[in-house]
Amino acid sequence: MSSTFGNRMKISIFGQSHSAAIGVVMDTPPAGFQINMDELRAFLARRSPHSALSTARREPDEIEFLSGLLGNATCGAPLCAIIRNTDCRPEDYTYLADTPRPGHADYTAEMKYHGMQDKSGGGHFSGRLTAPLCIAGGICKQLLSAKGISLGVHLAKIGKAEDSPWSSLHVSKEDLDALDPFFPLNNEDLRPAMEAEIEAAIADGDSVGGVIECAVLGLPAGIGAPMFDGLENTLSRAVFAIPGIRGIEFGNGFEAASLRASENNDAFSVKDGRIVTETNRHGGILGGISTGMPLIFRVAVKPTPSISKPQQTVRLSTMEQTTVSVHGRHDACIALRAAVGVEAAAAIAIWDALEDANV
Amino acid sequence: MSSTFGNRMKISIFGQSHSAAIGVVMDTPPAGFQINMDELRAFLARRSPHSALSTARREPDEIEFLSGLLGNATCGAPLCAIIRNTDCRPEDYTYLADTPRPGHADYTAEMKYHGMQDKSGGGHFSGRLTAPLCIAGGICKQLLSAKGISLGVHLAKIGKAEDSPWSSLHVSKEDLDALDPFFPLNNEDLRPAMEAEIEAAIADGDSVGGVIECAVLGLPAGIGAPMFDGLENTLSRAVFAIPGIRGIEFGNGFEAASLRASENNDAFSVKDGRIVTETNRHGGILGGISTGMPLIFRVAVKPTPSISKPQQTVRLSTMEQTTVSVHGRHDACIALRAAVGVEAAAAIAIWDALEDANV
Amino acid sequence: MSSTFGNRMKISIFGQSHSAAIGVVMDTPPAGFQINMDELRAFLARRSPHSALSTARREPDEIEFLSGLLGNATCGAPLCAIIRNTDCRPEDYTYLADTPRPGHADYTAEMKYHGMQDKSGGGHFSGRLTAPLCIAGGICKQLLSAKGISLGVHLAKIGKAEDSPWSSLHVSKEDLDALDPFFPLNNEDLRPAMEAEIEAAIADGDSVGGVIECAVLGLPAGIGAPMFDGLENTLSRAVFAIPGIRGIEFGNGFEAASLRASENNDAFSVKDGRIVTETNRHGGILGGISTGMPLIFRVAVKPTPSISKPQQTVRLSTMEQTTVSVHGRHDACIALRAAVGVEAAAAIAIWDALEDANV
Amino acid sequence: MSSTFGNRMKISIFGQSHSAAIGVVMDTPPAGFQINMDELRAFLARRSPHSALSTARREPDEIEFLSGLLGNATCGAPLCAIIRNTDCRPEDYTYLADTPRPGHADYTAEMKYHGMQDKSGGGHFSGRLTAPLCIAGGICKQLLSAKGISLGVHLAKIGKAEDSPWSSLHVSKEDLDALDPFFPLNNEDLRPAMEAEIEAAIADGDSVGGVIECAVLGLPAGIGAPMFDGLENTLSRAVFAIPGIRGIEFGNGFEAASLRASENNDAFSVKDGRIVTETNRHGGILGGISTGMPLIFRVAVKPTPSISKPQQTVRLSTMEQTTVSVHGRHDACIALRAAVGVEAAAAIAIWDALEDANV
Repeated sequence: MSSTFGNRMKISIFGQSHSAAIGVVMDTPPAGFQINMDELRAFLARRSPHSALSTARREPDEIEFLSGLLGNATCGAPLCAIIRNTDCRPEDYTYLADTPRPGHADYTAEMKYHGMQDKSGGGHFSGRLTAPLCIAGGICKQLLSAKGISLGVHLAKIGKAEDSPWSSLHVSKEDLDALDPFFPLNNEDLRPAMEAEIEAAIADGDSVGGVIECAVLGLPAGIGAPMFDGLENTLSRAVFAIPGIRGIEFGNGFEAASLRASENNDAFSVKDGRIVTETNRHGGILGGISTGMPLIFRVAVKPTPSISKPQQTVRLSTMEQTTVSVHGRHDACIALRAAVGVEAAAAIAIWDALEDANV
Repeated sequence: MSSTFGNRMKISIFGQSHSAAIGVVMDTPPAGFQINMDELRAFLARRSPHSALSTARREPDEIEFLSGLLGNATCGAPLCAIIRNTDCRPEDYTYLADTPRPGHADYTAEMKYHGMQDKSGGGHFSGRLTAPLCIAGGICKQLLSAKGISLGVHLAKIGKAEDSPWSSLHVSKEDLDALDPFFPLNNEDLRPAMEAEIEAAIADGDSVGGVIECAVLGLPAGIGAPMFDGLENTLSRAVFAIPGIRGIEFGNGFEAASLRASENNDAFSVKDGRIVTETNRHGGILGGISTGMPLIFRVAVKPTPSISKPQQTVRLSTMEQTTVSVHGRHDACIALRAAVGVEAAAAIAIWDALEDANV
Repeated sequence: MSSTFGNRMKISIFGQSHSAAIGVVMDTPPAGFQINMDELRAFLARRSPHSALSTARREPDEIEFLSGLLGNATCGAPLCAIIRNTDCRPEDYTYLADTPRPGHADYTAEMKYHGMQDKSGGGHFSGRLTAPLCIAGGICKQLLSAKGISLGVHLAKIGKAEDSPWSSLHVSKEDLDALDPFFPLNNEDLRPAMEAEIEAAIADGDSVGGVIECAVLGLPAGIGAPMFDGLENTLSRAVFAIPGIRGIEFGNGFEAASLRASENNDAFSVKDGRIVTETNRHGGILGGISTGMPLIFRVAVKPTPSISKPQQTVRLSTMEQTTVSVHGRHDACIALRAAVGVEAAAAIAIWDALEDANV
Repeated sequence: MSSTFGNRMKISIFGQSHSAAIGVVMDTPPAGFQINMDELRAFLARRSPHSALSTARREPDEIEFLSGLLGNATCGAPLCAIIRNTDCRPEDYTYLADTPRPGHADYTAEMKYHGMQDKSGGGHFSGRLTAPLCIAGGICKQLLSAKGISLGVHLAKIGKAEDSPWSSLHVSKEDLDALDPFFPLNNEDLRPAMEAEIEAAIADGDSVGGVIECAVLGLPAGIGAPMFDGLENTLSRAVFAIPGIRGIEFGNGFEAASLRASENNDAFSVKDGRIVTETNRHGGILGGISTGMPLIFRVAVKPTPSISKPQQTVRLSTMEQTTVSVHGRHDACIALRAAVGVEAAAAIAIWDALEDANV
């Protein structure tokens, strides 16, 4: 039961890189909600390859709704949406079946499934599975939006190039709306440096990692729970579903470890009749529960493990050392396309927390 | 349902800082397992204050088993263990009820429970709740040990002082066994610098944060799952139950974001007839599933928010700004006592993953 | 994870017949609810042996709250309540360990736990575990009462003697309130015939079964769900936790199998401005969801399997046939004391369905 | 989260009577299991209308696998299977939208979903949703079969006509294999009487109920659990997902309520070196756990509520009393087509219990 999420609405994701389709069941969005299909398609399009910086795999990613809707409105029945896999070239991967790619799940899948797993394109481990995650997340984002809650992400870092950080206190819905959907940056001037990182990696037959920062605005205070269903627990559980994520931090995160409390605590004050904090190092969460300040977290994304440079591996059938070069079609920086996945996962997690709170 | 964890064995934690007792139900450990009570008590003792560096609250923390055992052996029925709260001084906190402490859950609890929460000592949000977590974790650690799996933690960082990192490839059970239970360091020479950080904070009426690194050794390859029940998801969900954790990273974590794949991928090779990686930047997990290499993760712990320095807050009853100085009895560095909690949470999570895999 | 229940509030029951204590964790009742302790004790007292017709085991069954309360009000933290086992005589059962009692879980527990289970008094399988079920159920009953929802049970049948059935259309809160707490009958005139059934069984060293009927009044229309979380599914899952239950039926239940739809369907009509049915063969549930009519179900309770009459069994250690007479202290009709357990289980299930519906 | 089932393998069912498709996600069957597609299709065909006694709605019910397979073998990824709805005539139901049909979920769905539900053909409440249940159940039946466990059902009763009961002690796999897939009877001689019941109901524009009996053979002793995850709890939760079920009883069920323990207990004895009971009134379950004897349960199915006879209802828009005659295409006895659904639900539940036991 590895691909099911949620205390209230259950999200069940299925599909492999080269199965007939990939998809998601949502059990169940509230009845009577009008899904804005253009907005949903635009959201999903953000994870599609859109430039020379991304994989050459091109699929229209048409969403087909099998159930749960009347017209575009949810009807209280489980919603199933699928995307057909049309541009499959499984032969690209057959030569890899016996030589697990470094940094990929090939070897661990082999150990878990004893060789019975679908190896084409990573099977169920493929980044392609973030597409149904984005369908569910895109719908949750609309559900949240109807309650005045907004989400956004930017590329905080690509390789060694960094975007200027959000002033976590003052990030606004307008800031989120202004982000480029495909290459979201806080400071557009930093784009060339970031693109240069990716291009240099491509030129070297290599790839590069990054950091994605996510903000949730408008979340009322009091959402979440202590212990195992805190916002950090729930967001982490959702976000690590995305391949290649290596870490997550909330508010000032790892930086807090070096600070004194007098430097790290955020003073409470009153603004416009409501309680706020004067700084937002806590990232909008205290004790697993929202404070009403912007919820801010960051995730580290590793460099795409598939590279054309030869890498050392082992031939499973003979247990001999060999090398593998991964040709196929791959992104040189999965952080780019993972960004919308992080936003989707966050939307799913926040919606679940919100439903748990009966708000 | 915020304090319940687990796909297979359900861990349900209860209690408040000053309720009659705190405790845990484990539903259910496998029948017929002999718990080593001395070892369990020693494990739990690691989270007790043990020196001038920790809180002056002193309780014997005697474990009382209410159910689930025949002698010291599990009997297949849910195990309930409690610790009586004996050294309660709730009056310490009454003056705080109206003035939420910066960095604490006081304000968010107020918003979630509309003032009906138990405010004494943080109630259910108290770090004291890591004691039942440690009972469950200590039992899981013994269950894992019986399968050849070991866990350990060290203080990777206190404030600005760092322990030398584990060579994640060569960390051994002997390394773990050699750690000081109360101040676990890889390199004992670095202890004075770390203690100095804490003492300086105490002298300033302040506190300091830290980083805890955890290793799981002997975990066979193939444990875990893709997507939402991956090892990262499960470990994160467990670990963020500990108050004050702000981030988690696996393997080289956030560092991976700055690297090329050619620097970050770990080459596969054969050693003693089994497949290993030549480096361990992946921290023992690929695709949410164990590789058989040491599983390594780190968590950031914030400085104890309770400090005697005056801090700005708001009087809830009047919505006026005021200041608060937290006297009570507190640790100047919760990372010290949180360390065993991280080990406990990891043991619970890994046991759940292992049971899910029917190993 | 056999002893945990609930989609929203998790109920975790622990204890064995002769462990230090039995108890329950509720994670978590809504904060700020005042528990009426007299009412709760009176509810729990209904499952105590109260006459010559019941077991001679006598325990005060004092409820001790370990957590989750401030005074008598819930505080949003998990509530743990226990009952100490004081009147233990485990030696009563030692002679049974090798000779499983017919009709009991002795043999199946032996097979599941490989002899490591607590055999005293049935261990975790004991009817004594309905006491913590009744604590949780008694609290849920009060939570439901605050929303205008009432529950009650009567002994529809003891052996061959039947109580007159509730007219399911007209059963009122007053009818429920008028029931004798220890021997609840719709028609008190039928009590002698029922008592005679039990007394005759006792005289024969035997025991007798019964049917318990439960009504839930005031449940608004629209609570429940299709498929796996329907009211029938949820109520069944809760009610079969009580030892000795062999069947459950809703509305006219098994009788419906012999009827035509024209005899079985309930016509809709309008009464006092709201939609009702003119008959209530459906028992208040259609499609898993409440109609607003009285919810009515019945459960069959088998005769207490423990009887002093010699019964054939097998000596496990030698695999030889032998006989067993169960002395100890037992009820001649567990339906009497199971009745309040059924009401408790129903209260827990209905509360969960109500929370799921955000009512 | 109403349409999701399972502690280990999560079954998530989606679709409405007239949505684009209906289907199921299984997360996840064990990797490397070869599904016998002919057998699965034959299993599913058993719920198709197959004679003049059933609805005139005719659909080929082709199973389309979207994910989870390599060829016909499971690959450890979630399996999604769908059936396209081809023979839709939603206009058949439009006249019903304002006049809830007696005995149907129309009214309760209206109350739960505030009119936003899909009303065509009962939407997600339709008996058509037992088709994906049968896909999941058919696969579980094959998984069970590979472990030597067989399931079967027969029509114990149609209206007032009864099939001769299984001798629960001696029912064999051969008995199950000999059953007519479409009209399964223990005693074929009784078929004319049963068919006569249905034909008479059809002639009257009416319908008739029935009882389905299910047997599970080969289940080893020790499967199941006490309290909330007992076999009765799990089977009930699964079986009540089928529309029209009004009751369930295990072993001798409601009959036990009238018996003495000396009549109801089953004596243990030794046969061929293993422990058996000499009778099987307990139906293969004691304390929620299997005894190794045939597991036997029965469910009551109500008469199809849709009948052409005029019935009284209420026009929701005006709150006026009116009558409704249900034309459309309906079965005169849903017990016939529900039978395979009961077998499917049982297979799903037993598989879950078996996985929970790590067998």
